[in-house]
Amino acid sequence: MTLTVIQYVLDRLKAIGIADVFGVPGDYAFPVNDAICEDPALRWIGCTNELNAAYAADGYARVRGMAALCTTYGVGELSAINGVAGAYAEHLPVFHLVGMPAMSVQKSRAVMHHTLGNGEYDLFRRMTESVVCAHAILTPQNVAYETERLIAEALFHRRPVYMGFPADYAVQPVLGSAAPIRPPSSEAAALEAAVAAVRAALGQVRTACALPGILVARCGLQPQMQEVIDRSGLPFATMFMDKSLLDERQPAYAGMYDGAIMTEEVRAFVEGCDQVLAIGTLASDFNTGAFTARLDPAKTIAIGHHHVRVGRKVYANVELGDVLAALAERLDRRDWPRIAPHSLGDKSGQGDDPITVEALYPRWAEFLQPGDILIAETGTASMGLGFALMPQGASFHNQTLWGSIGWATPAAVGAAAAAPDRRVVLVTGEGSHQLTAQELGQFARLGLKPVVFVLNNNGYLIERLLCRDPAIAYNDLPPWRYTELPHALGCDGWLTARVTTCAEFDAALEAAGRMDAGAYIEVVTDSYAASPLAVKLHESMASLYGA
Amino acid sequence: MTLTVIQYVLDRLKAIGIADVFGVPGDYAFPVNDAICEDPALRWIGCTNELNAAYAADGYARVRGMAALCTTYGVGELSAINGVAGAYAEHLPVFHLVGMPAMSVQKSRAVMHHTLGNGEYDLFRRMTESVVCAHAILTPQNVAYETERLIAEALFHRRPVYMGFPADYAVQPVLGSAAPIRPPSSEAAALEAAVAAVRAALGQVRTACALPGILVARCGLQPQMQEVIDRSGLPFATMFMDKSLLDERQPAYAGMYDGAIMTEEVRAFVEGCDQVLAIGTLASDFNTGAFTARLDPAKTIAIGHHHVRVGRKVYANVELGDVLAALAERLDRRDWPRIAPHSLGDKSGQGDDPITVEALYPRWAEFLQPGDILIAETGTASMGLGFALMPQGASFHNQTLWGSIGWATPAAVGAAAAAPDRRVVLVTGEGSHQLTAQELGQFARLGLKPVVFVLNNNGYLIERLLCRDPAIAYNDLPPWRYTELPHALGCDGWLTARVTTCAEFDAALEAAGRMDAGAYIEVVTDSYAASPLAVKLHESMASLYGA
Repeated sequence: MTLTVIQYVLDRLKAIGIADVFGVPGDYAFPVNDAICEDPALRWIGCTNELNAAYAADGYARVRGMAALCTTYGVGELSAINGVAGAYAEHLPVFHLVGMPAMSVQKSRAVMHHTLGNGEYDLFRRMTESVVCAHAILTPQNVAYETERLIAEALFHRRPVYMGFPADYAVQPVLGSAAPIRPPSSEAAALEAAVAAVRAALGQVRTACALPGILVARCGLQPQMQEVIDRSGLPFATMFMDKSLLDERQPAYAGMYDGAIMTEEVRAFVEGCDQVLAIGTLASDFNTGAFTARLDPAKTIAIGHHHVRVGRKVYANVELGDVLAALAERLDRRDWPRIAPHSLGDKSGQGDDPITVEALYPRWAEFLQPGDILIAETGTASMGLGFALMPQGASFHNQTLWGSIGWATPAAVGAAAAAPDRRVVLVTGEGSHQLTAQELGQFARLGLKPVVFVLNNNGYLIERLLCRDPAIAYNDLPPWRYTELPHALGCDGWLTARVTTCAEFDAALEAAGRMDAGAYIEVVTDSYAASPLAVKLHESMASLYGA
Repeated sequence: MTLTVIQYVLDRLKAIGIADVFGVPGDYAFPVNDAICEDPALRWIGCTNELNAAYAADGYARVRGMAALCTTYGVGELSAINGVAGAYAEHLPVFHLVGMPAMSVQKSRAVMHHTLGNGEYDLFRRMTESVVCAHAILTPQNVAYETERLIAEALFHRRPVYMGFPADYAVQPVLGSAAPIRPPSSEAAALEAAVAAVRAALGQVRTACALPGILVARCGLQPQMQEVIDRSGLPFATMFMDKSLLDERQPAYAGMYDGAIMTEEVRAFVEGCDQVLAIGTLASDFNTGAFTARLDPAKTIAIGHHHVRVGRKVYANVELGDVLAALAERLDRRDWPRIAPHSLGDKSGQGDDPITVEALYPRWAEFLQPGDILIAETGTASMGLGFALMPQGASFHNQTLWGSIGWATPAAVGAAAAAPDRRVVLVTGEGSHQLTAQELGQFARLGLKPVVFVLNNNGYLIERLLCRDPAIAYNDLPPWRYTELPHALGCDGWLTARVTTCAEFDAALEAAGRMDAGAYIEVVTDSYAASPLAVKLHESMASLYGA
């Protein structure tokens, strides 16, 4: 049977690993929505709004390597666009399927709903161009080869792509064929030269460490990266965006490197090394301790997604996976000097003591179990948990570059949908939670059992720390009764608790740890109970904002 | 004292009538947020997310004629962009103030949070260009004249504008000055010719009617429009987007004209007239009964925002307000044939009867009081209420062209903030409500007392009517307990009720009518209890979608 345009695309997406599509239906998207729901190998996950759907797709892609998102024309795609931009910034391949008015309608320039009323139908695709790595309007004639191109681009760049489906074209039979595009191979001579250069650079030094970076995770190359560590004996540290990329409970782990503003012993160790291998890292503000990291380019080997730089020499056309495989094979094992990472230390407080920073973060760290997926919202909470030592196999996710508050709640839904056998722990500030809280109901609908912590510190704390007048009105929030939300949103049988003392917190943690259901715990702290990194950022505003 | 860049802009916005700014704060926007909060003549209304803020600004502008929105760079402005696009489509001047990284940082191309990490800082402004009528990045040198230009453009087009504030520039003193731009005047000869042509065309015919359109409302010209009706004696009908523009309880009102799919007597009357004056109307799909309206161009006089067309002759450079004033003066009063509008009729059902369509819409119509502001979400509910006869001075608002579901809940907040002395009634389907429900808490925070009706028909009903398989899974929703939401979101002392029978509904309506507090009523109907227009659209899909 000849496939329709949309069926063809869905078949190809399934073949590369997509099993779920997040979205909100809409009339122009019905042909796409129909095809998804009618495909027994695909699950439609209807989110409460399009931005939440995009964030959920982001969370899913962090766990599964890629994701699919489906919205309707104009209103839907624009509502999602911030989430798609986040996937671009954070290197997540999200296939954004957009249902459009029929091409016959587009050509007539009719004044249809979900348009600006000016007869221009190509505007929204063009608005999206900046935040996707490739885009196409799919037709019966182009769908075969355009789909292959878009898949290749999404995987090569690890970025989202935009696929527009005019409603009439979507259901027409495919006219054409195309073979899948093989991922690019490295140029053999360049690869050989690059690996030799890395090997030579390491051969001459006494101390070295690796900084495995986010692109390693995005490319699914953690096993290869671990192999490099195992075979070479190199110690490694991680920057904020890269946290938990490799197991933090291994002897090679040195801790979190956050420039000069945190964990001085790690800074001294990393910056003191004769060579640092930065592997798929990104030198962003929050990844470099507000630009206080000082990695001497002459002593830093940069292994990128598609290139390697050693000293002043750049080796282009080499793929990260090939480089890691070759390094695992070729690096000599040495007994490199190491340091041991620090944990957050013991928890303080008990009984009726208020939940201070020293009480809070060690408890959360202790609560985490091997294999957990921790989704940590941008804000003081993630800045605290980022320095906890993660249990074996547990992963830490944060939108470190894009930093769009509200991301974490729907992203946790996406992550949980992607890995139903793992426990998802969501930690969010209450201000961030308010942006997207309605997606909570989705956990229950999908039969998922996360543990949700809402840190209620009476406003946008990270903003209080960074603005001129901490008490200014714009940092205040509507006073919600957070623990009533799960029941209102259909999360039946969940544990809910509002804790204001250490004893209450301990009891809730204990209960949540043994629940076979979702848990939602509002943790109330003082308005200014900020994690150390958040306090440091407050003190480092000049270097952060370049003032 | 010399004003800073942001103070200057805020002063000018206040001078033209802005008293409130909706938004979400963010670090790059702090200079803008600070200036708003520190200005005693401005109120900062912090919304739970940026899209909600944009919708609230939309609702405010519908009532006050213009609005202001403030978001941060990248994440914030992109989250709001669908709401800004809606304001563009629906002709609402919204001043979107966007806080940006300092220009010194932009020039350095630093990899900052809220960027894509590629050093490009002008991307998001460019993405916005399609959905605003003008934009500028404000500097000390250009702020005076750019502000005047942007105000002039926003008011001339009744569309949103984008104002970008680099954090360093925002707090620098203004270097320059500019006088306010006077609104354009009509070309005298063209105005005289246009009005004479309209007069002549009406002088030759036996029957005529007016179709006062949305741009009349957007320009605040209802008094002038009413004057034309009063002086000329012309009857008038309204299309969907234009409903309630003039009082519906006056003898000149003929009813709702929705092409051939609804109210046949109005269609016959309007289309049977020898001349129709379409005044600031828009021939969109939902304004023309899915393109079934048949207005003979030879018998239709089109009075636009800046032009008039009579027969084949177009008179450019004439302003709507000037045309209306001249027509009020120059049209002869005649005893034009009229028809009387129909109401929805008597309510049916009582006691334990389920809430059918015939029970529902007449009850809602009866509940409305003079002066109410009704915010009706896109969907079957607004399609039902659109044909209710509004009480004196009551206004009906719907996003008829853009049709972004989720709009109504925050738009009702904006409308209520704009007119705290009027009662706001929000009618939304439960599916649409889920997108933006968290903004409910804002009513309580602002001390506003709306009446909220959530029509729970177990899914996206309008979609069930328009898609291939009404029962398909994507039209289902997470099962919320709606009536628990107000309390969870901090709306204390509200009346809440879930009604499934006519008796329960009557009791809730009665109670809500006498409450001096907010009310939230979930109205449960059968999954397929669709208003007549919604059913007609189902039957008119071919003409709607051009299939």
